[in-house]
Amino acid sequence: MSRFIVSPKASSWVEVPQGSHFPIQNLPLCIFAHANADEPVLGTRIGDKLIDLGALMDLELLSGPEDEDEAAEFYEFGYLDPRVFRQVRKGLYDILRVDNPKLRDDKSAKKEVFVDLADADVLLPAEVRAFVDFYSGIHHASNVGRMFRPDQPPLLPNYRHLPIGYNGRASSLVVDGASIRRPNVQTKGPNDELPSFGPTRELDFELELGFFVGMGTNMGEAIPIGDCEELISGVVLVNDWSARDTQRWEYQPLGPFLAKSFATSVSPYLVSLDALEPFRVNGMPQEPAVLPHLRAPKASHYDIELEVSIQSPSMKQPQVICRSNAKNLYWSFVQQLAHQSSNGTPLETGDLYATGTISGEAEGTFGSMLELTWRGSKPIVLSETGEERTFLEDGDVVTMTGWAQGEGYRVGLGTVSGRVEPAS
Amino acid sequence: MSRFIVSPKASSWVEVPQGSHFPIQNLPLCIFAHANADEPVLGTRIGDKLIDLGALMDLELLSGPEDEDEAAEFYEFGYLDPRVFRQVRKGLYDILRVDNPKLRDDKSAKKEVFVDLADADVLLPAEVRAFVDFYSGIHHASNVGRMFRPDQPPLLPNYRHLPIGYNGRASSLVVDGASIRRPNVQTKGPNDELPSFGPTRELDFELELGFFVGMGTNMGEAIPIGDCEELISGVVLVNDWSARDTQRWEYQPLGPFLAKSFATSVSPYLVSLDALEPFRVNGMPQEPAVLPHLRAPKASHYDIELEVSIQSPSMKQPQVICRSNAKNLYWSFVQQLAHQSSNGTPLETGDLYATGTISGEAEGTFGSMLELTWRGSKPIVLSETGEERTFLEDGDVVTMTGWAQGEGYRVGLGTVSGRVEPAS
Repeated sequence: MSRFIVSPKASSWVEVPQGSHFPIQNLPLCIFAHANADEPVLGTRIGDKLIDLGALMDLELLSGPEDEDEAAEFYEFGYLDPRVFRQVRKGLYDILRVDNPKLRDDKSAKKEVFVDLADADVLLPAEVRAFVDFYSGIHHASNVGRMFRPDQPPLLPNYRHLPIGYNGRASSLVVDGASIRRPNVQTKGPNDELPSFGPTRELDFELELGFFVGMGTNMGEAIPIGDCEELISGVVLVNDWSARDTQRWEYQPLGPFLAKSFATSVSPYLVSLDALEPFRVNGMPQEPAVLPHLRAPKASHYDIELEVSIQSPSMKQPQVICRSNAKNLYWSFVQQLAHQSSNGTPLETGDLYATGTISGEAEGTFGSMLELTWRGSKPIVLSETGEERTFLEDGDVVTMTGWAQGEGYRVGLGTVSGRVEPAS
Repeated sequence: MSRFIVSPKASSWVEVPQGSHFPIQNLPLCIFAHANADEPVLGTRIGDKLIDLGALMDLELLSGPEDEDEAAEFYEFGYLDPRVFRQVRKGLYDILRVDNPKLRDDKSAKKEVFVDLADADVLLPAEVRAFVDFYSGIHHASNVGRMFRPDQPPLLPNYRHLPIGYNGRASSLVVDGASIRRPNVQTKGPNDELPSFGPTRELDFELELGFFVGMGTNMGEAIPIGDCEELISGVVLVNDWSARDTQRWEYQPLGPFLAKSFATSVSPYLVSLDALEPFRVNGMPQEPAVLPHLRAPKASHYDIELEVSIQSPSMKQPQVICRSNAKNLYWSFVQQLAHQSSNGTPLETGDLYATGTISGEAEGTFGSMLELTWRGSKPIVLSETGEERTFLEDGDVVTMTGWAQGEGYRVGLGTVSGRVEPAS
């Protein structure tokens, strides 16, 4: 495998606003639907524009699948194959680099391939069959431990030995911008004699990253950790909405279930590991040493800045309430994947693996309301209006964003945002 | 909804051996592949024969989808719709009843539509996107509590208030007959300083039922419990293979994960609730009363006998080691589904919901090795050879079966069987 990395000095003839997440160094994949069109198409984004890859292929400005079978496969799931994605990015880089006049100077072709964001619905980057959520943010796990098991060490004995995770629900994955209905849930407070059923009173977000798997594996086949990167299609932001009151009530002994399954929001741009390669870093030291099958052969973390903002209906501007970084993950993507695959369960193309909440160590870096307000005991003040929040209220908009900062450019993940709607 | 129930007195011109699970009262759906054929077909089973429903439709002996679009939908997932399934069963009953000569006396048509079991691979009845496993067997949950939390009440406080469940992994669902490779897992014994990785030493089965959902629902739409039966396509047997040593190590705080995800076996015949209607019974009393949205408006349990047998490589005959009954479930199918849907997560056609281990109260009725051998302390003796078992060994074949006993006939689920292969 040899990565395709666009030089930090490269530029495009397409206008890319300062600070954009989508310069020529990024070139993510996405799925979008043209206004009034039924069938979604495969695209990329540069600056503030979408590009229809099918249109680019029809114009022979990007090489595509050669025959019908190949095309069917390509549009089905083939685009998630990191080798295919790499070829597409190479072609896109070529046609978009500043000194290539082929598309740049062809006005009518440009009209065919460029799409305004306002004229498209950008969708989930794949139909997901399996959604797995890990618990790889060590500061989050420690905070939760401190809150819920105050008399014990904050981390459980297994935490540093394997990436704890659970299977989530794929049917309620939604894309950036989808509104989130406050779920009705069963809860029982410590002083209640009996449980009751109604709208959750502790609606929360969780700041996470996720990655899509681009190639399936066979049943019984464990993937060596050194090969795991080759299966990863790209990275997204994930907001794992949570109902904390029912989570506390339901999670023993089989883990979170309805507290998580009502909705999970995902950002739509699949950012390749190639685009993130310049931002690869070592993770924090792992002590005690992990078992050999979980030892990554090289640095396997990424320096990705993360932010969460909240905007109440009364606010004119969102307020950033969390600043964190993907370096706060104890377990990396490839460690998660090697663990997942170690018992021989087949990976499937389109599987989505999320990291769990990525909190930093300091206050203001925590990736959930649970931690930011320390279980409701220290409300967040929304400075513009003076409102306070312990958990989310109806009408609140939560927006997450993340980017890797290069010299004079950013490779970003875009945003994942959602407004809380009242319970039905 | 009006159920289609075949009279206990009805019989078919097709020979049905005494005690068969598949008399004319059953008429389940299945998916099978003809020997040497690529594309699987939709079928049913009567006695020891399969019937190719497509062939029956081609001969106009069964009414099928009218146009291409309808046919595509039908073969995609439409057959799971309980209303469609009911129409198919009505048609099948008509053509197979003892006094209908149309197919009975048409030798060449019979040659077209009947398939010997030996000439077909019977497959999973649907491609499953979401597999959820509940914990609805109260004696199982109590036994596990007694073993793992001996100083506390056997059931956790939430148990009688909601059907505890977790999301499982769909990619490793396999059908009756598939062999099961012993997984490599991470474990740490109480006296080990560090964990290790290798073949599980505590491979177990779990005796469960499952049901497929035949119609999806919209996001945000909670299904009233009175409507839940109308979403259920049919019932199957499920063996939720488990690796107990890693389960103990990994399950805190997010529940079982790799201990379960390596394989789950499912029986291939989808037995409709219509066929099970004569065996509907009240469940055990639910005390304290459950919340209104979980109260089934009528009896919602089924009297289904269940058995597990084991056969070591040295044995000539399997030995029954567990006899249980679906009446041991605390939570019924519709209660599980109403709970699942209560937070608004969309159900999807082809979702599989399993019950959790169905143990009875007495010894010999427990649905897992963990309970049967009381955590390995009371080995099972295989009487034919004198071998002992605490957990499963390589080469062991585990077979589950289940049937409802009528007056002079059985409506059965067939079997789900799997042989343990050595770890790779």
